[in-house]
Amino acid sequence: MAPDTTCQWVLDSRPTGEPTMENFELTESPVPDPGPREVVVETRYLSVDPYMRGRMRDAESYADPWDVGQVMEARVVGDVLESNHPDFAAGDVVQGNLEWAEYSVADGDDLRSVDPELGPLSTALGVLGMPGRTAYFGTFDVAEPKPGDTMLVSAAAGAVGSVVGQLGKLAGARVVGVAGADEKTDWLTGELGFDDAINYATADDLSAAVGDACPDGVDVYFDNVGGPITDAAFDHLNVRARVAICGQISLYNAVEQPVGPRKLPKLIQTRARVEGLLVRDYTDRYREATERLAGWVDAGDVQYRETVTEGFEAIPEAFLGLFEGVNVGKQLVRLD
Amino acid sequence: MAPDTTCQWVLDSRPTGEPTMENFELTESPVPDPGPREVVVETRYLSVDPYMRGRMRDAESYADPWDVGQVMEARVVGDVLESNHPDFAAGDVVQGNLEWAEYSVADGDDLRSVDPELGPLSTALGVLGMPGRTAYFGTFDVAEPKPGDTMLVSAAAGAVGSVVGQLGKLAGARVVGVAGADEKTDWLTGELGFDDAINYATADDLSAAVGDACPDGVDVYFDNVGGPITDAAFDHLNVRARVAICGQISLYNAVEQPVGPRKLPKLIQTRARVEGLLVRDYTDRYREATERLAGWVDAGDVQYRETVTEGFEAIPEAFLGLFEGVNVGKQLVRLD
Repeated sequence: MAPDTTCQWVLDSRPTGEPTMENFELTESPVPDPGPREVVVETRYLSVDPYMRGRMRDAESYADPWDVGQVMEARVVGDVLESNHPDFAAGDVVQGNLEWAEYSVADGDDLRSVDPELGPLSTALGVLGMPGRTAYFGTFDVAEPKPGDTMLVSAAAGAVGSVVGQLGKLAGARVVGVAGADEKTDWLTGELGFDDAINYATADDLSAAVGDACPDGVDVYFDNVGGPITDAAFDHLNVRARVAICGQISLYNAVEQPVGPRKLPKLIQTRARVEGLLVRDYTDRYREATERLAGWVDAGDVQYRETVTEGFEAIPEAFLGLFEGVNVGKQLVRLD
Repeated sequence: MAPDTTCQWVLDSRPTGEPTMENFELTESPVPDPGPREVVVETRYLSVDPYMRGRMRDAESYADPWDVGQVMEARVVGDVLESNHPDFAAGDVVQGNLEWAEYSVADGDDLRSVDPELGPLSTALGVLGMPGRTAYFGTFDVAEPKPGDTMLVSAAAGAVGSVVGQLGKLAGARVVGVAGADEKTDWLTGELGFDDAINYATADDLSAAVGDACPDGVDVYFDNVGGPITDAAFDHLNVRARVAICGQISLYNAVEQPVGPRKLPKLIQTRARVEGLLVRDYTDRYREATERLAGWVDAGDVQYRETVTEGFEAIPEAFLGLFEGVNVGKQLVRLD
C-alpha cells in the first residue's frame, strides 16, 4: 500500500543563468487514490538530464516549460504499489515520465514494463533507456559513421556520448572523444576503446587540439555541448561531413543570447550536413534500439558507467552537477 | 584571326575588407599561338560572381586562391577565332572558365559548346548556366520544397535566388523572397510570382518581418547571404525544415571573423537539416538541369533578368557592385 503523503521537489522560481538550490523547494503532498487505469509507483531510480534546464525556462521549446509551483518531472524506474490498470500489478517494475517525488500516481497507459532480464534496473534510465536510444538513433540515423571515418564526440564521457563513441567503433570509425577531466579521457581511451580523447579543460587551443587528434579531419561530429568545442570541430570538417546536434549544454545557462563565430561558410566549402535530433521522433523503433543495445552490453561491446547519487533530498544537487561535469556516464538518483 | 595582344585584368593586391579598384590592374599581354588541342576565344560575355571574393583571399577553400599578379578568371561565353581542337571551329560559340581578358587561349577539352537554340547567348552564364544549375540542384536536391511548404529565399533578386524562388513555386511551395530594394521586391512579387517579399533594407526588425511574411513558419530556407537575414530565418524554422547554404555574401568582405547568435539549439528543437551546396558536385547532371531550365524558360515558367555592364574596362566595377546589391538578376559584362 502507498503511504498517505509523499515528498516532492517543486520549481520554486525560474533560474537566471546557472540554476541554484534556491530554484527548488521540497514539499510534502498527499498521495491521491489511484483512479481508473491509474497506478501508484514508488520511485527507485530517477534520471536527471540536461534538457530539464530548458523546462525551467519560460519559453517554448520541444518540451513544455514547467510552471513555477509545479512538481518537476523526470524519467523514473519504480515499483508498482497499487494498480487499477490491467497491464500492471503490485510488485511489477515500470518506468515512465513521473515526478521528482517518492511516490507518483500515473495513467498506466503512460508506463512501460521494465524487463529485469535485460540488465540492472538502473540501465533502463541509461544505456538501455533514453540516453542509450538517443545515442543509437543519433549515431545510425543522423551521424552515420562509416568504416574509415573519423568521428568526434563531445561530452564523450556523458550518458549519451559514451555510448555514441562505442557505437561509432562498432560502425568501423576512428573515434575521438572530448571530455573535461583526465579521469574521463582515461576511461574513454582505456575501457571504452576510443582511439583518442581531448581534455578540453587543459587544452590551450581547442581547434589545434582537434586538428592534432583528427589529422585526417572530421567526417562525423556528434555534438552534445555546443559553444567553443563545436567551433573547433567545425574548423576540421571534411567534405560531406555529418554533424548531429543532440545537445548544447554549454549554452543552456546563458543569460544573454550566446554569440560565436559564424561557421556556415564552412558548410559550403565542405557540403557538410548539420542536423538536429530528438529521440522521441523514433518512438516506434524504441524496441529495436533497446534490444540491440542490450545485446551489445551483454557481449561487452558497449560498456557503461553510472554516477549514482543517494537519496531523495539530493535530486537538485545531482541535477546541478550535470552543468559542472561531475558525472561520468549516466547521472542517476537512487531512493531507498 | 586573333590579334597579337589582349587586355587583361590582374589581381594587383589582396583586399582587406571590401575590395576596391586598387586591387585590380589593367594590363596588356601577347596572345600566345594556340598549341595542340588549344582554342583562341574572343570574350563576348563575362560573368562576375560573389564566390570570386574568396579567390582574392590567400586561404584554402573550395576554389583555389588567385596569386597576386595572376590574371583573374571568370566564366565566359565567346567566339572561337582559331582552333586546334577537333570539336571546335572558328565561328563556334563556346563557354568555359577563361580569363578577365578580351582574348583567351584555352585547352579545348575545358570548353563546352553553347547551343544558341536554347536561348540568348548571355543565358549560358545565367539562367541556363552556373547560377541556374546552382538553383536547380540546390532546390531539388538539397532544399526539397514540397507542396504546402513555406520557402524563404535570401538574395532572392539575384541570379540564383530569382530562379530558386520560381522553382519553389513550380514545386508547389509558398515562396517568400528577401531582397534589398523595393524595385527588387516588386519584381519578385510581380513578374516572378513570389507570394511575398521582404525589403531587408527598410525592415525595422528582420525576425519580425520574416514572422509576418511566413505566418506558418519556414519549412525551407535557401540561403545566399548569411548574417542577420539568416539569423532571422532560423528563428522561424519549422520542424524538419531544410536549409540550403549556397552563399554567404554578407560575410565575404569581413576583416575580422564574423560573429553572431548561436543558433544550433534551434536545430534540436526543430530537427532541421542545414546543408552546404556546391554546383560542381553535380557535373554529371548539368545537361539535365540545363535542358529542364530551358524548357521552363521557354514556357514562361521561369523568367529572368540580367544586369549587363558594357565594356571590358568595367569588369571590376561590375564585380564590386555585387556587394552593393546593384544587380537585378545575373550580373554580366558585355564586350564589343
